[in-house]
Amino acid sequence: MRASVFIATSLDGFIARPDGGLDWLPQGGGEPHGFEEFIASVDVVVIGRKTYETVLGFGGWFYGAKPVVVLSSRPQAIAPPAGAVCEALSGTPAEVVARLELRGFTHAYVDGGVTIQGFLEAGLIQSLVITRIPILLGQGIPLFGATTRDIRLRHVSTRDFPSGMVQSSYQVLPGNPAP
Amino acid sequence: MRASVFIATSLDGFIARPDGGLDWLPQGGGEPHGFEEFIASVDVVVIGRKTYETVLGFGGWFYGAKPVVVLSSRPQAIAPPAGAVCEALSGTPAEVVARLELRGFTHAYVDGGVTIQGFLEAGLIQSLVITRIPILLGQGIPLFGATTRDIRLRHVSTRDFPSGMVQSSYQVLPGNPAP
Repeated sequence: MRASVFIATSLDGFIARPDGGLDWLPQGGGEPHGFEEFIASVDVVVIGRKTYETVLGFGGWFYGAKPVVVLSSRPQAIAPPAGAVCEALSGTPAEVVARLELRGFTHAYVDGGVTIQGFLEAGLIQSLVITRIPILLGQGIPLFGATTRDIRLRHVSTRDFPSGMVQSSYQVLPGNPAP
Repeated sequence: MRASVFIATSLDGFIARPDGGLDWLPQGGGEPHGFEEFIASVDVVVIGRKTYETVLGFGGWFYGAKPVVVLSSRPQAIAPPAGAVCEALSGTPAEVVARLELRGFTHAYVDGGVTIQGFLEAGLIQSLVITRIPILLGQGIPLFGATTRDIRLRHVSTRDFPSGMVQSSYQVLPGNPAP
């Protein structure tokens, strides 16, 4: 199973304000920049419970009718919104990937800071598409976190948009094994 | 006086390893990406004492014969390398800018994480050129830091290089006054 990240960050690397706020994103999400095509390419979404709750709290649901796996040790806490297909799962990133593979999933969309960081650290992300918004927030929820090693990437392509968004695609290079 | 930033960062926003190490930069600094043109456009360099000592410690001196102002409250600690034109100065970013303007300087190159952060927070940076290296370091000296407000930027241009470096130029938008 492949796993990909598709996310917007501020120029200083935050994916949300400290309270999860996304008001700093361009109006209407900015120009179309490939999210529809990306989400059509995945067959499962993996997010953390915190991201799940933040997404619900802000009244948005970006994942359509895709199966969404919420990483949580308290499965009873998951009450999905209408139309959403959610289930709770617990385990390490490697365990989660193994379980999703057993169920036939082939391409996961990994979302949310903590979850992305855990999967990157475990060597389980293959590609990242990062769309940078031209703003410094100064504080917030970071995209990246501490790692136990360098993780080298291959730059695939970059494009920019009239709104000032700059989108770069990367592949994680092999030879970045988990410790 | 204008003040500009021209700097390379890892994809996760670090300008150096925790010890100041720059071994993760592309061999030989990567493809020519405008540094020579940039440094020719400035008439003074402003760095913090820590950056100064780190630069010296790694045996590099990127600033040629440009006048370099080292922000330090201990002027006697500055022992410049041969050929370098250094002096120590202390004061807030606004005081430093005022003093350099009095001396006729017109374009400052502000370098080093702490100094860049202080000048940005003070509303005294007009442009940033950020060159992103395709690597996650996981820890290090960050380019950006906390701010007391959003700082909005205008994206000017982005280009990428075969080595995977992605360079974006931004202007700091007016209406980002210091608090």
